[in-house]
Amino acid sequence: MVNEAQQSCSGSSSSRSDGGSSSGSESSKDSSRCSTPVLDAERHERLRDKMRRRQDAGDKWFSLEFFPPRTANAAVNLISRRVLRAGGPLFIDVTWHPAGDPGSDKETSSMIIAYTAVNYCGLETILHMTCCNQSKDDITGHLQKAKRLGLKNIMALRGDPAGEEWEEEVDGFNYAVDLVKHIRNEFDDYFDICVAGYPKGHPEAESYEADLRHLKEKVYAGADFIITQLFFRPETFLKFMKDCQAIGITCPIIPGIFPIQGYHSLRQLVKLSKLEVPQEIKDVIEPIKDNDAAIRNYGVELAVSMCRELLDSGMVHGLHFYTLNREVATTEVLKRLGIWNEDPRRPLPWAVSAHPKRRVEDVRPIFWASRPKSYIYRTQEWDDFPNGRWGNSSSPAFGELKDYYLFYLKSKSPREELLKMWGEELTSEESVFEVFTCYITGEPNKNGYKVTCMPWNDDPLATETNLLKDQLEKVNRRGILTINSQPNINGKPSTDPIVGWGPSGGYVFQKAYLEFFTSSEIVRALLKVLRKYELRVNYHIVNVKGENITNAPDLQPNAVTWGIFPGREIIQPTVVDPVSFLSWKDEAFALWIEQWAKLYEEESPSRMIIQYIHDNYYLVNLVDNDFPLENCLWQVVEDTFELLN
Amino acid sequence: MVNEAQQSCSGSSSSRSDGGSSSGSESSKDSSRCSTPVLDAERHERLRDKMRRRQDAGDKWFSLEFFPPRTANAAVNLISRRVLRAGGPLFIDVTWHPAGDPGSDKETSSMIIAYTAVNYCGLETILHMTCCNQSKDDITGHLQKAKRLGLKNIMALRGDPAGEEWEEEVDGFNYAVDLVKHIRNEFDDYFDICVAGYPKGHPEAESYEADLRHLKEKVYAGADFIITQLFFRPETFLKFMKDCQAIGITCPIIPGIFPIQGYHSLRQLVKLSKLEVPQEIKDVIEPIKDNDAAIRNYGVELAVSMCRELLDSGMVHGLHFYTLNREVATTEVLKRLGIWNEDPRRPLPWAVSAHPKRRVEDVRPIFWASRPKSYIYRTQEWDDFPNGRWGNSSSPAFGELKDYYLFYLKSKSPREELLKMWGEELTSEESVFEVFTCYITGEPNKNGYKVTCMPWNDDPLATETNLLKDQLEKVNRRGILTINSQPNINGKPSTDPIVGWGPSGGYVFQKAYLEFFTSSEIVRALLKVLRKYELRVNYHIVNVKGENITNAPDLQPNAVTWGIFPGREIIQPTVVDPVSFLSWKDEAFALWIEQWAKLYEEESPSRMIIQYIHDNYYLVNLVDNDFPLENCLWQVVEDTFELLN
Repeated sequence: MVNEAQQSCSGSSSSRSDGGSSSGSESSKDSSRCSTPVLDAERHERLRDKMRRRQDAGDKWFSLEFFPPRTANAAVNLISRRVLRAGGPLFIDVTWHPAGDPGSDKETSSMIIAYTAVNYCGLETILHMTCCNQSKDDITGHLQKAKRLGLKNIMALRGDPAGEEWEEEVDGFNYAVDLVKHIRNEFDDYFDICVAGYPKGHPEAESYEADLRHLKEKVYAGADFIITQLFFRPETFLKFMKDCQAIGITCPIIPGIFPIQGYHSLRQLVKLSKLEVPQEIKDVIEPIKDNDAAIRNYGVELAVSMCRELLDSGMVHGLHFYTLNREVATTEVLKRLGIWNEDPRRPLPWAVSAHPKRRVEDVRPIFWASRPKSYIYRTQEWDDFPNGRWGNSSSPAFGELKDYYLFYLKSKSPREELLKMWGEELTSEESVFEVFTCYITGEPNKNGYKVTCMPWNDDPLATETNLLKDQLEKVNRRGILTINSQPNINGKPSTDPIVGWGPSGGYVFQKAYLEFFTSSEIVRALLKVLRKYELRVNYHIVNVKGENITNAPDLQPNAVTWGIFPGREIIQPTVVDPVSFLSWKDEAFALWIEQWAKLYEEESPSRMIIQYIHDNYYLVNLVDNDFPLENCLWQVVEDTFELLN
Repeated sequence: MVNEAQQSCSGSSSSRSDGGSSSGSESSKDSSRCSTPVLDAERHERLRDKMRRRQDAGDKWFSLEFFPPRTANAAVNLISRRVLRAGGPLFIDVTWHPAGDPGSDKETSSMIIAYTAVNYCGLETILHMTCCNQSKDDITGHLQKAKRLGLKNIMALRGDPAGEEWEEEVDGFNYAVDLVKHIRNEFDDYFDICVAGYPKGHPEAESYEADLRHLKEKVYAGADFIITQLFFRPETFLKFMKDCQAIGITCPIIPGIFPIQGYHSLRQLVKLSKLEVPQEIKDVIEPIKDNDAAIRNYGVELAVSMCRELLDSGMVHGLHFYTLNREVATTEVLKRLGIWNEDPRRPLPWAVSAHPKRRVEDVRPIFWASRPKSYIYRTQEWDDFPNGRWGNSSSPAFGELKDYYLFYLKSKSPREELLKMWGEELTSEESVFEVFTCYITGEPNKNGYKVTCMPWNDDPLATETNLLKDQLEKVNRRGILTINSQPNINGKPSTDPIVGWGPSGGYVFQKAYLEFFTSSEIVRALLKVLRKYELRVNYHIVNVKGENITNAPDLQPNAVTWGIFPGREIIQPTVVDPVSFLSWKDEAFALWIEQWAKLYEEESPSRMIIQYIHDNYYLVNLVDNDFPLENCLWQVVEDTFELLN
């Protein structure tokens, strides 16, 4: 490993490898320092480099193709489902449907689905784009928008001509290679470009050989890798790959795998792609064509055996799956191949966004822990993201709340369901306490419905919160309406299944945190109690009008989650930041009205109860700084109730 | 404490205090974030603000005046002595001696003494400057140089005219007020300016009242505070202060205290300052004028009683001491007054520099832990200092070693003493091992001399290192020549007298660290042993030629000291940085030759032994990442020796 240090260090440091006299010759200007890629080198790489790294490390990987759903609800479902990131795909790709206004701002457009996958789901994503029958300006517009939205990868396709008889346009985009050239001309090296390969040759090509030459043109025009059309026999792909290499195509070629999931979907696909199903497959399928389960089982078997053969060849490092938005078959194939990652490790306690601007982001305020999409949305205009340290945030410039009803941030369930969970009719503040308590306990409310979400939570209760369940139940019953909390952790292994994050071999820590709404009466008692804990507990207490009570020193952020890892600097991904808290406060109070009160008729008693809470309660957060000791926050609350009695 | 958050938050955040609709109105440009003042707010304040803060907090403080010693050795002594910072002065000041070339680069110049105090000792420092008989250009040159060197405070004085008969110069600097105006004209608000006040009136002033008016002019011209000439009765000062206030002087006025230390020094001072010693003092002193101890005791008594009266008046918050470079009397006065800080808490594990450019610095590589002056010197040209995180240091641009013999970095003792410690004659590598071992144990060497310093250590062995003494002795005897080490610490209170640092209420942590020179034979065995510890121990092994062996992931720095504090972000003041290690390596190897080998004749066996070690040994550092477990580095070394046997 001699000189590994120099080898892996890029740029100027290479000058150091040749001896002992290297220090100090650079000018002082070089000393300005930027942040290091810290926990997850892949996060800082473009897709083609990730592929290279995986290949070099001998890690097999997979990717998943989805198409934009037809309805907004289905789109929310697709994006909300864990399926997108489950198992740990290297990337997903989103197809382009010229008929479906794919570049628009509609919830169901290809552009927006890809944007959401990148920004809110943190997924490396390839956006398909077709070029035929489109003007240069349209294409450039789509690409500019994609870049603006944080997309970094384009699958450059010709697409199907509109009419029956297709004629080349002079100066138009006639082939995918024209699109590849255009992207490289207009956007230089910004995008990673993927192109399609046809193991049997493109159906419209003069010949298999001619099609290979077209593919080579696309690669030489600037494509970074190739994903193939589906095929039915492994030898088809392996021959294709060798033929590609023989004519000088050296970029990665990723086989497109289509696990047969049903008779009709197969027929339709075959018709569209003009492929021929081999006789041996037809022979199996025809007799069982009405037995969906049997066909799917056969499809899985077939895919597994084909993938095994591909991987065993040593020529294939990644597999691309045509999912048709259905995950069951693909998941099973991947599990049986052993490349499904059951428990993808969390690089940070919160899910990172894949937007290139956010690649250094590794600190966030804890307030949005249960509303990460809102946090990403409200900070999307930031030029810099906190990294290493939250730093001075006297002007965090959070996005305004007026765009609150952004599609992907909207409430999760229809009004009727929310009413069943949160109460058709509220009779008192106590009936609100009851809702909070049911959410914590998971027990059905008095009408028999489980409360599976709250206005302040994108997702069901975190596993970690279960550690505090009994205590949380007790205090919610009494009007300490908790919306966020974490237990203290004094150095658990980073591989801990519940609180662990980051690379293995490290230790993670937390300060106990509790955030809740409560009445001014309780706040008055609480403040008296907090005097006893002055040096131990930091607090921020604010009402909707912004009246703010705190003992935070010099408005500094307080790190409440951090990790110590072998050979790394310290990571502190979560802070309690006094200034951001005031922006969160606006959102947290508004959610009472926008998501809850507005379920009820104006002037109705139910609505007035929520309005009263909104107008009069305080939002409180407490941090116990003594993380090695037993969490004192429950005692603080206990003392407060005692004082009140 | 309502709205404390807003009150203490400057600038844009104040707009948040008036309600709930404040989020998000700033443009995204505002989101770029700078670092927070973290552990020590005073470090980020200018002197006048520090005074204000102390006054507001009711903390009494003191300051110390020194003059530049006449010889270089005395200057090194003054600067090296702990006296400068002992007890925790708010600032020191350095007098200006026009006859002594005070603005030059000589070791004994006022400028260089002040520069050293600020940069290397980390002391807030006021540089005196006199203006009479000097050209505008000279003065501006001095001020520019002071600014360049990191000085921030000037005591603006007229100084004594050169001849007997003094005449005003047209357009020249005739009074201190001219200098004050000039500083404000040319340097705006950069400097804090101090001026002298004369409780009895300046001896050359027409009258006490006229002198008060001159003082007011100086303040109105831009002076920030006043230090007074010495006086003998508290009522003299208190009257002066009231008179100042009466005519509208509102800035701080700091009484200058002179504890009488001897009959002759008092006479000389009185002559120079044209002050009259009150009869009651003369009556005491004259009879005991030959009894130094008696006079000093009386002087301390007198000063203590005067200071008490001043502090008790409520008008005085800080005391300025004319030390005449002798600390005994002043120290005793301060101790008896109870404003001597016996154990000034360390804000960071290493002593911070007071240069304004370095005010955010809170991370350093561990390598220079025992040579902090060298680190400060070699990084003095940096524009940015690491803060929060070391970050990407692929171009740390350390200063070159050619200026190695910089006055303040020179070896501590004369050649003869070093030879006694390090051996008049070396006979083998083992006799070098013996020197290292004696340094660690504190036992005399075989010639009866204690080894109190080594080329790699500015200071005697750190208390903390004593924790590892037995282990260090064992390994040095066998040729693991340690030059730096720290034990692992798993969450000790930040107030721990040995390893603690930072504000109270926190917890400090360390990873075990060991750095040593050793032979290539031992390195070969060590590398085999390290395979067993691959995930646990990070290592860097390099020889003088720069051949470098490491298992550091992606050349990232490894945090080895960090602290968690109430209401703060995490501080990680010490890292093992792979890239800086290569700069340190150059220095560490060069010290063998420059400080040790060159003590001996060329071609002498002793010199050849050191040269051999320099040419053939490796510099090794090891970090045990599992800080909660028992330090495994001793086991690593033990295993290595076992493998060799």
